[in-house]
Amino acid sequence: MKIKIYYEDTDAGGVVYHTNYLKYCERARSELFFSRGLMPLGEDGSGFVVRSLKCDFLTPARLGDVLEVTTEISDTKRVSIRLKQSIYRCDIKIFEMDITLVFVKNSKPSKIPQKFLKIFDTL
Amino acid sequence: MKIKIYYEDTDAGGVVYHTNYLKYCERARSELFFSRGLMPLGEDGSGFVVRSLKCDFLTPARLGDVLEVTTEISDTKRVSIRLKQSIYRCDIKIFEMDITLVFVKNSKPSKIPQKFLKIFDTL
Amino acid sequence: MKIKIYYEDTDAGGVVYHTNYLKYCERARSELFFSRGLMPLGEDGSGFVVRSLKCDFLTPARLGDVLEVTTEISDTKRVSIRLKQSIYRCDIKIFEMDITLVFVKNSKPSKIPQKFLKIFDTL
Amino acid sequence: MKIKIYYEDTDAGGVVYHTNYLKYCERARSELFFSRGLMPLGEDGSGFVVRSLKCDFLTPARLGDVLEVTTEISDTKRVSIRLKQSIYRCDIKIFEMDITLVFVKNSKPSKIPQKFLKIFDTL
Repeated sequence: MKIKIYYEDTDAGGVVYHTNYLKYCERARSELFFSRGLMPLGEDGSGFVVRSLKCDFLTPARLGDVLEVTTEISDTKRVSIRLKQSIYRCDIKIFEMDITLVFVKNSKPSKIPQKFLKIFDTL
Repeated sequence: MKIKIYYEDTDAGGVVYHTNYLKYCERARSELFFSRGLMPLGEDGSGFVVRSLKCDFLTPARLGDVLEVTTEISDTKRVSIRLKQSIYRCDIKIFEMDITLVFVKNSKPSKIPQKFLKIFDTL
Repeated sequence: MKIKIYYEDTDAGGVVYHTNYLKYCERARSELFFSRGLMPLGEDGSGFVVRSLKCDFLTPARLGDVLEVTTEISDTKRVSIRLKQSIYRCDIKIFEMDITLVFVKNSKPSKIPQKFLKIFDTL
Repeated sequence: MKIKIYYEDTDAGGVVYHTNYLKYCERARSELFFSRGLMPLGEDGSGFVVRSLKCDFLTPARLGDVLEVTTEISDTKRVSIRLKQSIYRCDIKIFEMDITLVFVKNSKPSKIPQKFLKIFDTL
């Protein structure tokens, strides 16, 4: 998934505001669902929520840069998954994240539906 | 209502990203509700939505600035209200907006509840 | 220019937060520069700033929607331009904006460089 | 430092969008500088950048919530510091983060100035 850096993404330091890298990774996760005709949010309010994450900011991105986000599955459990997402600019890794998502229904952890598991199996 | 300018508010031009002035005005509108123990969003999904706005960016704000937002009522109708909001930095007006909000219930314009009208009467 | 709606774009009302439509228009303006190998921001800190705008929110966008932004030139002056930008979802106009941008150098209005005028001539 | 949750902070899931907790922590860090009459960004482009972080999202915040951010120093080195930041709602911890910041000058890690070290000594 490609991301273009616009003004809205930068801050007064002239580079991308740090939390935006996390947004780009979320866009890439949502795109996994959209590209299969699915919505990441269920009608009944169920969906994945971020439980924890760990990330490294390797080098900053700037206005006009084109970035690419990759997503790999690290682990799948009954109610949660762990992903490794990386952001590249021209084949140079500039950001790396390990993220754990929990599937939640009625505000409680719940078994990940089969149709979602299938998505992650292909990563 | 006071607003402090943080990194997240600025862009690569070193000043506040233009849409953020509109956010500060929305915070001030929400605060009108919160300060009276009300939520701007009803349990049934009813609430005010922005229908139109017109604004002037008079002078830019920068990192660390403290801004003040004022809100005046311009007009009240059955299903909509028109507000005039201004943003000041040390008594100098830096932004001005005329905004029309429509009260919506089940995705349709609906009569503004009495408890909300009371709020605007005090402006 | 196409825009996909992600979680980050929506608010608790379930629809796109109102200032985000203005962001999508800014992305489309920046893309005019990028697509010609230019940056919207000069090395010397010169660039276009938003002076005023007027917009109508016709119908809300939701998670997963794909929007299209169009940009037309309304007027070109020595130091400023006026654009009309519209956002469509499947050929239905959902947002419309008239925006005036001023070219600024050393914090002062300045003559728009020829290379930028050429861009707007093609709209 | 107190944070009020507005519409702009929430997403279609009805709760605070995950990256916003990181923004609140950044506001609290900036406030450490502002409250001492300092800017977090030097005239010469020097300043702290985020190098890495690790965080846990314990329970979600919602529209109208009032949150409190606390900041403690974990470690101080020549060019970097490590902080522990927590977010509370009514004495219940809802978010926790370990973050490492590097002081950068001319895009290179650089010795943290004495005036900044003094700030962290008081935490």
